[in-house]
Amino acid sequence: MDAPLSAGNARVKEARKLHRRSARSERRCFLADGPKAVEGALDVPGCVVEVFATPRAATEHAALLGAAPVTAPVTLVDDRAMAGLSDSVTPAGLVAVCRHLDVPLADVVGVAVVPPRLPVIAVCADVRDPGNAGTVVRCADAAGASAVVLAGDAVDLHNPKTVRASVGSVFHLPVALERDPAAAVAALRDAGYQVLAADGGGELDLFAAEPLLSRPTAWLFGNEAWGLPSELAALADERITIPMLGAAESLNLATAAAVCLYASTRAMIRA
Amino acid sequence: MDAPLSAGNARVKEARKLHRRSARSERRCFLADGPKAVEGALDVPGCVVEVFATPRAATEHAALLGAAPVTAPVTLVDDRAMAGLSDSVTPAGLVAVCRHLDVPLADVVGVAVVPPRLPVIAVCADVRDPGNAGTVVRCADAAGASAVVLAGDAVDLHNPKTVRASVGSVFHLPVALERDPAAAVAALRDAGYQVLAADGGGELDLFAAEPLLSRPTAWLFGNEAWGLPSELAALADERITIPMLGAAESLNLATAAAVCLYASTRAMIRA
Repeated sequence: MDAPLSAGNARVKEARKLHRRSARSERRCFLADGPKAVEGALDVPGCVVEVFATPRAATEHAALLGAAPVTAPVTLVDDRAMAGLSDSVTPAGLVAVCRHLDVPLADVVGVAVVPPRLPVIAVCADVRDPGNAGTVVRCADAAGASAVVLAGDAVDLHNPKTVRASVGSVFHLPVALERDPAAAVAALRDAGYQVLAADGGGELDLFAAEPLLSRPTAWLFGNEAWGLPSELAALADERITIPMLGAAESLNLATAAAVCLYASTRAMIRA
Repeated sequence: MDAPLSAGNARVKEARKLHRRSARSERRCFLADGPKAVEGALDVPGCVVEVFATPRAATEHAALLGAAPVTAPVTLVDDRAMAGLSDSVTPAGLVAVCRHLDVPLADVVGVAVVPPRLPVIAVCADVRDPGNAGTVVRCADAAGASAVVLAGDAVDLHNPKTVRASVGSVFHLPVALERDPAAAVAALRDAGYQVLAADGGGELDLFAAEPLLSRPTAWLFGNEAWGLPSELAALADERITIPMLGAAESLNLATAAAVCLYASTRAMIRA
């Protein structure tokens, strides 16, 4: 077996550049960091270009690296090279170079939903915080949504913090990017989805909205700081507010998304 | 009017020490940072010891500082002193020295719940991340819970990140600290609360549990990384799992809490 590559190796250096958004965009590749993420990536056909592993991690995770449906070439690197590839303070020793995951909007709006997934799509307009974006993808996955759309001026789906916060969910369901939130709303409505805006100023409360929730639904969520612009909320079929019983003015983006998405899940599996 | 105090002033230096948990514990005081937090603190009788403000912020927020039910002494400080008091990269110019907010467990379990609050109490065992703790407090407030209990080896409620993530909610509802989670469970049950553990391995799913949810409920949530220890989950009346329809294994602590707490809210206001 070849000696582990060092941090100075050209391929390691090229992979390390994927910490920058510009390099990710140009090469349409990103880094999946840690065994959980690498396992998720290996489950997606064609996603993994190559896996970098320390000799120790390669031994420890041999089953994972060998048994996935699509195995990828594994390159051994030394600890210093791994430290440069991982953005974790305590690298687990496994980083995969992956192809970008985002799909065109047409691939998520006009396709049949396969159970146990539900005809629910989470649309985030202008989500800026990578942790929030990843957490919303995780919630959407958990609730059985069939897809997520990051619309408008969104954080990079392939940011390491987004990937990490999703805890593997970026590999589980399709995520579409669409610069124009209004276009996403129009496409979803054309495909038969009602569009419900989660909007603190909405006219209908979430519990009163229950009779609507068994229909195919695109949930529209706004930015974490300033919510949904009114012109975008106006495009929705209904503007739904989560009841605030105490003195809080609002929920944060991810918790609001979890409450709305699970309200749809409940309505659909009860219907 | 006196000249604004500088960073070298003894009182400013004393207040700045409250960035450290040890100083907060010793003096049972903490810093509320920014107009939103200061406004929340001023609404709590006896909470604010004094407010530090830059001359500019004092002018801008004169109404807030003068009109609260309990006004507190305002001390002007210069920008450098403010930069040391605030843990924000762009200080808003207003920081209050506040008395600790936590109450004894007996103050939250045996008291009448005043509407619109509901007989729901969120109990977090061993929550370690300040952002998570603050977000759970915010969710509990929004959902109308009457109190939060931070049980076990919990993050400091008065950590600036906890206070910030709560977006004012630490000032809205009582938060009790209890080192022994089993003692919290026992006290809550004695006070007439059923104890429901949010537990990924639970025997009852959240939707099937709905008939239970209109009863006074203490929700028990585990640590963000390792969940609820089984011996603690075993103390609950029921172990409830949030249905995972997609491929995600779990939700994060705050989103799971939001979904469970709002399930109780829904059941109670519908009952």
